[in-house]
Amino acid sequence: MLVNVVTVYVKPEHIADFLAATVDNHTGTRTEPGNHRFDVLQSAEDPGRFLLYEAFESQDAVEAHRKTAHYLVWRSKVDAWMAKPRELVSHRIVAPADPAAW
Amino acid sequence: MLVNVVTVYVKPEHIADFLAATVDNHTGTRTEPGNHRFDVLQSAEDPGRFLLYEAFESQDAVEAHRKTAHYLVWRSKVDAWMAKPRELVSHRIVAPADPAAW
Repeated sequence: MLVNVVTVYVKPEHIADFLAATVDNHTGTRTEPGNHRFDVLQSAEDPGRFLLYEAFESQDAVEAHRKTAHYLVWRSKVDAWMAKPRELVSHRIVAPADPAAW
Repeated sequence: MLVNVVTVYVKPEHIADFLAATVDNHTGTRTEPGNHRFDVLQSAEDPGRFLLYEAFESQDAVEAHRKTAHYLVWRSKVDAWMAKPRELVSHRIVAPADPAAW
C-alpha cells in the first residue's frame, strides 16, 4: 500500500474546468480494484491549489491506473490548465496500519 | 468538513522518536468525535519528510483537537525534532462528496 500526494496549481480561468475533469477522474479511479482512496481537495486559501490524495494497493496498481481511459483523458485535458508543473510525493503508510482503514 | 495537510521535516536522528510520538497522537486523535481521519505518511524518497492528513468535521473540531492531551504532548515533544517549521495547508473537500466516505 502506498499514497501518492499530488499538488496541482491551476490557472484561475481554468479552475472550473479542472474541477469537472478531476471529479470525473476521481469517479473512474474509485472503480479500479487497486485503488483505495482518491480524495480531491482545494486549498482554503488559494482556490487554484489542489491536492490529490491517491491510495493504491501497490506500485503495479499505480501503473495500471496510468493506463486507464479516465486518467489519460484527465492528463490530456489538464496539462494546459496548470500554472506550473504538478508535484508528486510518494509515501509509505505509517498509520493507520490496519489495511481495513483504507 | 475540512482536511488539514501538514508537512513535517524531521532531523534524521529523531525520526524514530517522531514516529513513536506521532503514532500516539494518531491513536488519540482517532478517538475524537470530530475527527474522521488522521493518516501518518512517510515520504518514500526522504525518510525525514512526513505528511499528516487530518480530516475534521469542522473548524470547531480542529480547535478541540488542539486542546487535547495527546496533541499537546505531541507538540511539546516534536518541536525540537523538526529540521524546519512544519507547513499546514487547510482544504475544503471536493471529492468524495459523500460524508460517509469520511
